[in-house]
Amino acid sequence: MADAGRAELSVADHVEGVRRGDRAVLARTITLIESRAPAHADKAAAVLAALAPAAGGSIRVGITGVPGVGKSTFIEALGMHLIDAGHRVAVLAVDPSSTVSRGSILGDKTRMERLSREPRAYIRPSPTAGTLGGVTRRSRETILVCEAAGFDVVLVETVGVGQSEVAVRSMVDAFLLLMLTGAGDELQGIKKGVIELADAIVVHKADGDNLDAARRTRADFESALRYLAPATEGWTTRALTASSVTGEGVAEVWETVDEFVAATRQSGAFERRRRAQVLDWLRSMVEQRLVGRFEAHDGVRALRPEVEAAVLDGRLSVPAAVDRLLERYES
Amino acid sequence: MADAGRAELSVADHVEGVRRGDRAVLARTITLIESRAPAHADKAAAVLAALAPAAGGSIRVGITGVPGVGKSTFIEALGMHLIDAGHRVAVLAVDPSSTVSRGSILGDKTRMERLSREPRAYIRPSPTAGTLGGVTRRSRETILVCEAAGFDVVLVETVGVGQSEVAVRSMVDAFLLLMLTGAGDELQGIKKGVIELADAIVVHKADGDNLDAARRTRADFESALRYLAPATEGWTTRALTASSVTGEGVAEVWETVDEFVAATRQSGAFERRRRAQVLDWLRSMVEQRLVGRFEAHDGVRALRPEVEAAVLDGRLSVPAAVDRLLERYES
Repeated sequence: MADAGRAELSVADHVEGVRRGDRAVLARTITLIESRAPAHADKAAAVLAALAPAAGGSIRVGITGVPGVGKSTFIEALGMHLIDAGHRVAVLAVDPSSTVSRGSILGDKTRMERLSREPRAYIRPSPTAGTLGGVTRRSRETILVCEAAGFDVVLVETVGVGQSEVAVRSMVDAFLLLMLTGAGDELQGIKKGVIELADAIVVHKADGDNLDAARRTRADFESALRYLAPATEGWTTRALTASSVTGEGVAEVWETVDEFVAATRQSGAFERRRRAQVLDWLRSMVEQRLVGRFEAHDGVRALRPEVEAAVLDGRLSVPAAVDRLLERYES
Repeated sequence: MADAGRAELSVADHVEGVRRGDRAVLARTITLIESRAPAHADKAAAVLAALAPAAGGSIRVGITGVPGVGKSTFIEALGMHLIDAGHRVAVLAVDPSSTVSRGSILGDKTRMERLSREPRAYIRPSPTAGTLGGVTRRSRETILVCEAAGFDVVLVETVGVGQSEVAVRSMVDAFLLLMLTGAGDELQGIKKGVIELADAIVVHKADGDNLDAARRTRADFESALRYLAPATEGWTTRALTASSVTGEGVAEVWETVDEFVAATRQSGAFERRRRAQVLDWLRSMVEQRLVGRFEAHDGVRALRPEVEAAVLDGRLSVPAAVDRLLERYES
């Protein structure tokens, strides 16, 4: 839809448009990178390779929490706070309303109304359908493109479903977990392993009648955190409260991120994580490309349904099926 | 070590030896399958393809829990109970003492002394080092080989570290989580997401002074489980107590597994999971083979250290590095 009737951009158009912060080109570049069309793969790789030297300069922050915890209102409040402090903020947002692969701007606009009107903010919604809780297979590349466009904070939203948090943790510097107060919330958290990925837990909606309970919950988490291994070496995970309605605590969340970045930069943990993430990314990109080529291979595509049916019927073993598919691939 | 000074077995030797339940051949076949030597890959694939039609006939049970929960004493108690009931039991065990890739028999013997002397049991220790909590990249294939050797129960042990449980869950029919009683144990569980993978939670060491506390913990889990989505559609996760010292509750654990299998077979969930697991296995085996060939490629091996160093120094972007490695692979 976005590209209908428009002239195709060259690699140089993409690179220059992103570098000068042209939002339309930025959007089209991310769409190019997310494309599964084999015809786009070479171009996307060329654009990424050209943009990569300009990337790496942001603080990357993952933000997670179960549906209903108020992730988008919190991201809006935090984002506005950062804009006011002079930052340029990119948000890779989950768009729960969208089931198409382009990402619906509408769903996003209604969720982060003020932030989406800010010229110094850029919100990229990702459809949740068919992806890992809003994390696309191209989230790392999208972070890189946003950095090349001059954003110095990248917030990566994900829904609290476990696997997506592990994926996001592998591409961000700091990781925030939003929680709610109230009995049984520890159970509602659903994937408790997520707690151990967090560098800070933010008890959200700490306002009005809820304020005292939120403070107690914060204290509870603080005790609980003592039993858990820290998510980041040398950093003790913090528990905080925040309200996106009153704004109270939002600045403290970012101060905590700043402290975290300063402490881990000094200890070397920041740089070590980035290096490990880069090698991890290299490995997973190679893997994706190898698997992508295999899956796009005409002979494999033709043979696969028949082989899968035979495996499910028990007529063919899995190892034999693998052999047949690989033979076809290499013939 | 195991194969030193012995004649190499042919594909037919492996297949026939496994089928007649020859333990020495079984051990050497698993070693062949686990081998990372490129020279062994084709032979391993041929052996697996030949054995596969004879596989699939066991109940596959994953058993997890944090270190200290008593996994090996429980597996010994459960295994002896199953032997007495006429089953043949294979155990893919974690060997915490071993850091070598062959798996040390010694470490295992001292851990499951009675079971390891049973002719109707077979214990295969896996080193934890460099693997996913004892789950090897060949665990599925090892299950298959054990089934072809006539074992009708396969117990897959894993340590409670999160990722390995997800891997084991994807290859077993039923999943048991061992827990201890005592304050703070819910926190000691470390990876809470693991609870949601379990079809039954067994509060272990329910004996002596600990019995009452274990019963209370069981009741606590039973309440907590009401808030969690079941691990298996149509099955309500149970909480049980067991002692490997008195033997109390061990039979009930297996009765629960039997009930689980009967209920899920009737609902179709058992078969649906196995089918999904088979397709998942097919996908992951293809991926492993594609990646394995890439990594074994002489040109890639020669280029890789230099490319990784350039990426870490920031002289080369990840997308450009991927291109360079893939170009070399394909040249």
